[in-house]
Parts: sequence; C-alpha cells; structure tokens
Amino acid sequence: MSFASKWLLTTLSLILLSNPVSAFDVLQPLPESPIIPADNPQTVAKIELGKMLYFDTRLSQLGNLSCNSCHNLAAGGDDDGAIKILSKGELKRSTPPVWNAAYMSTNYWDARKTSLESQTIDHLTDARVMGIVSAKTIENRIKAIPGYIKAFAKAFNMNNPVNLENIARAIASFERTLTTPDSEFDRFIKGDKNAISEQAKRGLKLFTDIGCLSCHFGVNFAGPAPGPALKMGDGFYELFPNHLGSEYDKKYNLTADVGRYLITLDRTDTHMWRVPPLRNIALTAPYFHNGSVNSLEEAVRIMGFVQLKNKLNDRDVSDIVSFLKTLTGKQPEITLPRLPETSGLSLIKN
Amino acid sequence: MSFASKWLLTTLSLILLSNPVSAFDVLQPLPESPIIPADNPQTVAKIELGKMLYFDTRLSQLGNLSCNSCHNLAAGGDDDGAIKILSKGELKRSTPPVWNAAYMSTNYWDARKTSLESQTIDHLTDARVMGIVSAKTIENRIKAIPGYIKAFAKAFNMNNPVNLENIARAIASFERTLTTPDSEFDRFIKGDKNAISEQAKRGLKLFTDIGCLSCHFGVNFAGPAPGPALKMGDGFYELFPNHLGSEYDKKYNLTADVGRYLITLDRTDTHMWRVPPLRNIALTAPYFHNGSVNSLEEAVRIMGFVQLKNKLNDRDVSDIVSFLKTLTGKQPEITLPRLPETSGLSLIKN
Repeated sequence: MSFASKWLLTTLSLILLSNPVSAFDVLQPLPESPIIPADNPQTVAKIELGKMLYFDTRLSQLGNLSCNSCHNLAAGGDDDGAIKILSKGELKRSTPPVWNAAYMSTNYWDARKTSLESQTIDHLTDARVMGIVSAKTIENRIKAIPGYIKAFAKAFNMNNPVNLENIARAIASFERTLTTPDSEFDRFIKGDKNAISEQAKRGLKLFTDIGCLSCHFGVNFAGPAPGPALKMGDGFYELFPNHLGSEYDKKYNLTADVGRYLITLDRTDTHMWRVPPLRNIALTAPYFHNGSVNSLEEAVRIMGFVQLKNKLNDRDVSDIVSFLKTLTGKQPEITLPRLPETSGLSLIKN
Repeated sequence: MSFASKWLLTTLSLILLSNPVSAFDVLQPLPESPIIPADNPQTVAKIELGKMLYFDTRLSQLGNLSCNSCHNLAAGGDDDGAIKILSKGELKRSTPPVWNAAYMSTNYWDARKTSLESQTIDHLTDARVMGIVSAKTIENRIKAIPGYIKAFAKAFNMNNPVNLENIARAIASFERTLTTPDSEFDRFIKGDKNAISEQAKRGLKLFTDIGCLSCHFGVNFAGPAPGPALKMGDGFYELFPNHLGSEYDKKYNLTADVGRYLITLDRTDTHMWRVPPLRNIALTAPYFHNGSVNSLEEAVRIMGFVQLKNKLNDRDVSDIVSFLKTLTGKQPEITLPRLPETSGLSLIKN
C-alpha cells in the first residue's frame, strides 16, 4: 500500500477526521508499548545487549561514532543540528529523533527502510555513516570481544548468535524501550482538561482547523500508526513543499534534495517525504529534512504557507507552537552501559 | 621542580625503593579521594552541572563532540584508539584516560597544563579539538540555555556565574569523582594476599626488579602523586625512547613526535614525556603517545627494551601483563544526565 498520492492522502484524512469512531486514532496518547515484531520478542537480556551496542563506538569504522553520537539519549534523541563529520564527508539530512521511533511505520526521511532492524543494518553498513560495509567485518569485531560473546549467548537461543541480523535485533529491541510517555498532551487527551494551557488548546484547534492534522495525526503525529490502518513498513508520504515557488524555497534551500525520488526513481516521488513525527518537536531543532530552519516558530510559519497556503500571523504561530510544546514527553533515565572490554588490545587500531 | 634528569629520577627512585617508610608511596592503593583545589571545592550541585557539561556536545563548534566522545565513560575513559576526525583534521596523540586523572599532577602527554581546570579550558578553546576558540562565544552558548543559567546559579554563589572558568571548574569537579577504586592490586596492597594471582605477583616483582617502578610508581603509577613529594602542576618526565635506534623506533614511529620540546623549545626536552599512568591500562589500548602499539604485551616488550635495554622473554612479558591487569579498578555506574533544552531552537544551527 502506498499513500503517495495527494488525493488518497486527503481522502483518508477526511475520512478519519469525519468519523467519530476514528477520532481516537487521529489524536491519541502514546500507547503503553509499541508493536513488537514476532521474530524479535523483547527480553531483558536482549535489551541490555542492545543498549551496549547502541553506545559502542567500536561498531564504527574509525571507532569514533556510536548510535548515540547522533541519536543522543541525553538530549532530544537527535543531535541539535550538529555538523556530522563522518569518515566519508558530511551527512546532509537532519537526524530524526530515536525517541518513539518504535511507533514509526517506516524509517528515514525517505522511508527507505521498513523496520528498526533493517534501518540499523543499513546505517551500520553505510560507508557514509558507521562505515564498516562488510557484515563479516562487523561480526568479527564483535566476536573479538569476550563480553559480547556471552551477552549474545544470553540474548539469543541459538548456535553462533553473533551476526549482523542479531546485532540489529538487539539494538532495535533497546530502541523499542525509548519512548517518552506522559506529555502534557497525553494527560490532556486522557481526560485531564487542565493539562495544557488555553493557548495550547487554541493552538490544537488551529492545528486541526487549518489542516496540519491531515498529515500529522496518529500516535506520533506522523500519519497512521502501524496497526490495522497501516502495516509496518508501509509509508505515509507528503509532497514538500506542496506549493512550490515561495520565497522560502530559496531562503532555506527546500527543493535541492528531491527526497523519495532518489530511492524509487519514480518521478511522482519527486519531493515526496515521509511525514515526520512531532512528539518532542521542541527538543529536535533544527527543522525539515535539511535542518535548514532553526526555530520552531519559523518552521510552523513555513509549513502553514508552503503546505497549506495559509499566511499565519504571529499569534497563530505562537498558539500552534504552544500546542507543539505540550508534545514533549518524559524522557527516561538511562544508565550508561559498561562496554565489554578487550583486555590489553584495541579493536580499532587492529 | 623538574625531574627531567635521568640521574635525578634514578636517585629518587632508589631512595624511595630503599626506604621502608616510603615504600607505601611507591606502591599504594587509590586513596579515598583526590586533592581538591582550595578555589574549587566539591559540591553536589557543581558535580551535577559538570556532568551535564561533560556530556554536552553543544560545547563543540560543530555540535558533534562532548568530553565523553573521546574520554568515554562507558569504556576505559578513553577512545580505544579511535581516529579522531575533528573540524580541523585529525588529532595525532592517543587519548589519555579520564579515570583517575584527578591523581595526575599535570595533564596531557606533554604536561602542558597543570590542573584539570586549565586542561579543560585548553581543550574547549582549542581549534583542533572542541573548536570554539572564543571564551565569549562559549559563554554565550551556555547562557542561551535556560536550564544552565539555573544550574550555574545553584553551583556558584556569585553574580553572572556563567563563564569559561566556571565551566571548567564544574567539569573538573565532575572529573574528580571519576575514580576506579578496588582493583585487585588495591585489595592486594591493603593486605589481601590472595587478591592477585601468583603470576601477577611474579609480574610485580619483575616490574620492580628490572626498573619499571623507577618511573611508574605512586598512586597512578605515573610518578610521585601530588602532595608533599610533588606539587600539583609539577611534572614528572622521562625520555622515550630512552635508548634510541632500536627496530621499534621505525616500526612504531616512536620518534617523529618530539614531545615536550614542542612546548618548552628547550632542546633537553626533546622526546621527553610525562610518565603516563598505568591504572586500567588493560582498558586503554592502543599504547604510547602516538597510539601506535595495539597490544599490551607488545607495549611491555618495547618498554623493557627501549627504556631499560632488557630483552624480556615471553614468560616475563606475560607475567608483567598479568600484574598490569590487576590495576583495572571498579568503574562507577554513570546515569546519563538530562541536558537542559533550548525549546524550539538549535544552538548549533544558530
């Protein structure tokens, strides 16, 4: 199923918005837990292993990067717009937050991966990112660390469990624990009418009325949540900029990157992007696929105009931002793992 | 006081080794706590603030590095020999471990800084490292983060406490908590004769007999600990390689970097280095100032020959390594700090 067509999108949104039963789907609190794939059940041992791997720079070719280097769990689950100097140059797209990634049906701005597991494998073996392109080399690095041999044996009930797929399974299992419940919005939608301010309520109404909610709905405000409405791996896309030719295109270089077209080579995918999530959006500046816009106010102003042809005034922008700030959830306390050692030996140097 | 002369060094070592009262100084367990500078007392608020700053990538120009990026608290307090790709190219010297740095009298391989505070300021403002060379710019970044304004007010009893000196004081205070007590060696030296193996005991005897202990003695096995014997800020240096011209010079490129000479421009400081600490040495491969040697066995073999003209056999090397592995202490559990946010705004992008 592909939602690439604008028409389908709008129709779906209208159905959802006009159907009182589905209202809960449009605006809903963060569930207790995400969908867990049948072939990767959550276990304490696997989550603990995944946490170690998530923080382990030895998974990068130069030994200088871990998942946490860009998807920073001490901050908004991203990198505050850091210039990502990697072994093969600079990554040009803004880092998506890892918080609540478990509730996304696809991964990356261009939705080129359809599970946290496949996304992890992709990043690990990407020459531009973690940089070790050979699965064998990654596996051999991990196999050289006695503590990992033990941890994999504990996490996976099989012979020779250290392989790239299981590395990805463990990291994905850990990531499925990285959720931010109990935002002001969640408390509001569960019935605490005072959980958000009057300004935020005005913002939510405006957000709904002018059409932001047509795309930004569901658990993560990124379209339908994985489940009956959308299978895990199905994308939910939008054209951005929807109205080409505004001053913003040039000012923020919005059209240089053609988005999903680079993956599908289908011309109708030119400037199509996965609808990005909005939870914790106040923590994940800068904004848009190229991280070109620094402030949330300006991002809202641009979205209003280039997507909805709506010139929002300062009060409207401020109200919507006030609502968006209620989407900041409680970020869990993370204890730094103790990475298993290679006694008297460097794996990077080696 | 400078210990640059080999003669002085040897004499001092002999005095220490031959004096039963001083034996405790030569081999001693990690003290309960390091010396705390009078102008930077430890407080809970300051340590907590220092921990946030230690993990905050916004202190780097490109937003991609924190202290923890290289001095990794999930690992040996260093970076396993990672290739350090920074904004201005690659750093060439091996990252010294932050664990027990509080017990060093000087900082850096060339001892160019004489306190954790001055070392921190130096790294923060070094264009090749954290990259924001202007104190004003660093201060303005931190001042733009409301949570830090509060945390500095809590940690420092003064008006306008956000300044580079206080940033360094807070980070240094946190670093003084980063100690690794209760190694097998510590338990041994405190009286538990079974805390280390027979092989490790042979290794310790050999380490003493052949002369390793002449330089690697004291709390950190890095020469005299700060205190009556050596003021904080006084260096304890050695020539390396002591015997020039061995096959190792070329094989591991040991002489290209002339060490302390680059700081003092005094020709007698050519190839002089601060004696490096040995605690947790099994966790901090690769070895030497240039990180050129991958294994601890090879490092011991080289040290025996180029420093002491002693061709150690495999059994001797293995015994000494067995002793060195008893120096791995208990690394504390660290809870990841929650970095104060800049709501809806990126400081890096800005």
